[in-house]
Amino acid sequence: MRKLYQLGELGIINKFFQHFSLAASGINLGMGDDAAALEIPKGYMQLITTDIMVEDIHFERKYCAPQFLGHKILAINLSDIAAMGGEPRYFLLSLGFPEDLEVEFLEAFIAGLQQTAKDYNVTLIGGDTSASKKYIILSLTLLGQVKKRELITRSGAKPGDYTYVSGHIGCSAVGLNLLKAGYYLDSGMVFKRGVSIDKDEEKLARQCLLAHLSPSPRLKLGRVLSAKRLARAMIDVSDGISRDLNHICRLSKCGALLYEESLPISEAVHYWAKKLKLSPYDLALHGGEDYELLFTLPPEKAEELEHEIKKNQLISATKIGEIKDQKEGIKIQHLDGTRSMLTDKGYDHFRDS
Amino acid sequence: MRKLYQLGELGIINKFFQHFSLAASGINLGMGDDAAALEIPKGYMQLITTDIMVEDIHFERKYCAPQFLGHKILAINLSDIAAMGGEPRYFLLSLGFPEDLEVEFLEAFIAGLQQTAKDYNVTLIGGDTSASKKYIILSLTLLGQVKKRELITRSGAKPGDYTYVSGHIGCSAVGLNLLKAGYYLDSGMVFKRGVSIDKDEEKLARQCLLAHLSPSPRLKLGRVLSAKRLARAMIDVSDGISRDLNHICRLSKCGALLYEESLPISEAVHYWAKKLKLSPYDLALHGGEDYELLFTLPPEKAEELEHEIKKNQLISATKIGEIKDQKEGIKIQHLDGTRSMLTDKGYDHFRDS
Repeated sequence: MRKLYQLGELGIINKFFQHFSLAASGINLGMGDDAAALEIPKGYMQLITTDIMVEDIHFERKYCAPQFLGHKILAINLSDIAAMGGEPRYFLLSLGFPEDLEVEFLEAFIAGLQQTAKDYNVTLIGGDTSASKKYIILSLTLLGQVKKRELITRSGAKPGDYTYVSGHIGCSAVGLNLLKAGYYLDSGMVFKRGVSIDKDEEKLARQCLLAHLSPSPRLKLGRVLSAKRLARAMIDVSDGISRDLNHICRLSKCGALLYEESLPISEAVHYWAKKLKLSPYDLALHGGEDYELLFTLPPEKAEELEHEIKKNQLISATKIGEIKDQKEGIKIQHLDGTRSMLTDKGYDHFRDS
Repeated sequence: MRKLYQLGELGIINKFFQHFSLAASGINLGMGDDAAALEIPKGYMQLITTDIMVEDIHFERKYCAPQFLGHKILAINLSDIAAMGGEPRYFLLSLGFPEDLEVEFLEAFIAGLQQTAKDYNVTLIGGDTSASKKYIILSLTLLGQVKKRELITRSGAKPGDYTYVSGHIGCSAVGLNLLKAGYYLDSGMVFKRGVSIDKDEEKLARQCLLAHLSPSPRLKLGRVLSAKRLARAMIDVSDGISRDLNHICRLSKCGALLYEESLPISEAVHYWAKKLKLSPYDLALHGGEDYELLFTLPPEKAEELEHEIKKNQLISATKIGEIKDQKEGIKIQHLDGTRSMLTDKGYDHFRDS
């Protein structure tokens, strides 16, 4: 199999990046100059976000197929733009690849990236390609835009707001636990150590593995919440609800009450949590990497939210709590009715690895 | 000594990044939300560039002090904005640090970064912090702006233009060779294996080591070339003149003739090239990482260029050749008067490491 050093740096750029579509409007210069140059439409703000993924910290090569990696490094940035109510437009990609990496790996990575770029209508406009001694490094910067009056920050929540989360939570954390336990996806089927698993289990496992390997950024929901002025504060659930709700409360100078019984936990999470001897509630609260939207809404807009979700066929959203005065802190009401402080147990790369 | 894992991810962000100045104008949201949100002044284009530096590919920890690293990851991006004629404004920084890295290392890195950010009036508006298994990873995205009619690309050169380069070239390559030969800088003094070196040599070595470890982006020169409409095409010399002139010629659909005798090679490069048994002309043509500006100019503007350089006390620029018709190719006239094709021997991470 061919290795990257056989292509060389310019060979890699020419083979993989030169023909990436640059046909988007509003861009004057894409790749091939010292910097990209863009025009921003009048009345719009420029949004910018960046995320890095490092091999053996964020993923392991043995269980994360390259096409999922190409999707995921873009998807997690798209999720940040969704959380601001914005539309994504352009991205820059910096890569570090070991020089003995197989060319097929990079081909599959690019295919995954290109498909997701097409799905979400975003254009590659620059980047940097480097060798790396051992580990794969992916660093992506995404630019988006939003009308100035439609921007949704983390700091707009008010006491009395309802707190919602889109989709289901905890699936990605189960998926990661499944990967660590030896389950893996191959051609859309779940196997464990080369053996296919029971058909009922298989479907539930696949859901969680895909939630982890191939998360869906909630851009359509984010846009509707923003354009219809529904959400007052929003964040994407990347570190786990316990930490991400904490961010909203800190920046909005509010407290919050969360109902454990309201957390949208799927059958798949309940099933696999039991089998893996984990608490589904802990996975939902502290698991992270769900890339769902966590947002707050004035109660009088709750009906309009349901209406818009149905009308636009958006991912469902579940009311999981309320925003309170800051002095009440951030609490969780457990299944037995008792309440306790909600501790931030979100993931810490420097401590949990 | 304290290690990074003792601080944790949020501890690192709070300690090092929360208090980074966010006082720049035009920015509505900096760090602390899902994405940064910016407004671009009317009539301006947004410039964006990104560069990645990976340990043991772009630098070695043993010879590159952390304050130089903090400077350099920003400086090489500033140089890209200079090459477009733009003004730098905001940056995003993604870091991957081994968890057993000493806190003092990160402190010195941030001090170097912060000083350079202050010197060039740029503001940190976002980023990502990750652990890394073994190697330090630095990925920086820089945003700048330029008036639409003042943008200088790589594609504007015309046959008959003069070709100029700022400052001196080859110094950085000598600096890298000195580092590999065991010379190093400590508190501004040059040592080799712990022993201080001869005073005359020391000054010449320091020049080259600083050119490599602490390059100066030529932003003032870039702005004057752009605002006064002097340069027709421009690039920064990061891969070596042989490759960077090639980029201008390819994108401008031109050829070029370069005069070897005109290359601005400093006394330090001549001295150390001889001592290290390297060709000073090869170092100047193919060495790379000079971060000088290579630009083309209509001949009738040559006088105005000299005038502006004197008036604004800018770095000097040397005429090193001319732009030719594309069919003439890219040639170099050697010291003995013979001519040959100028081969691109610029650095390739995937082949030369």
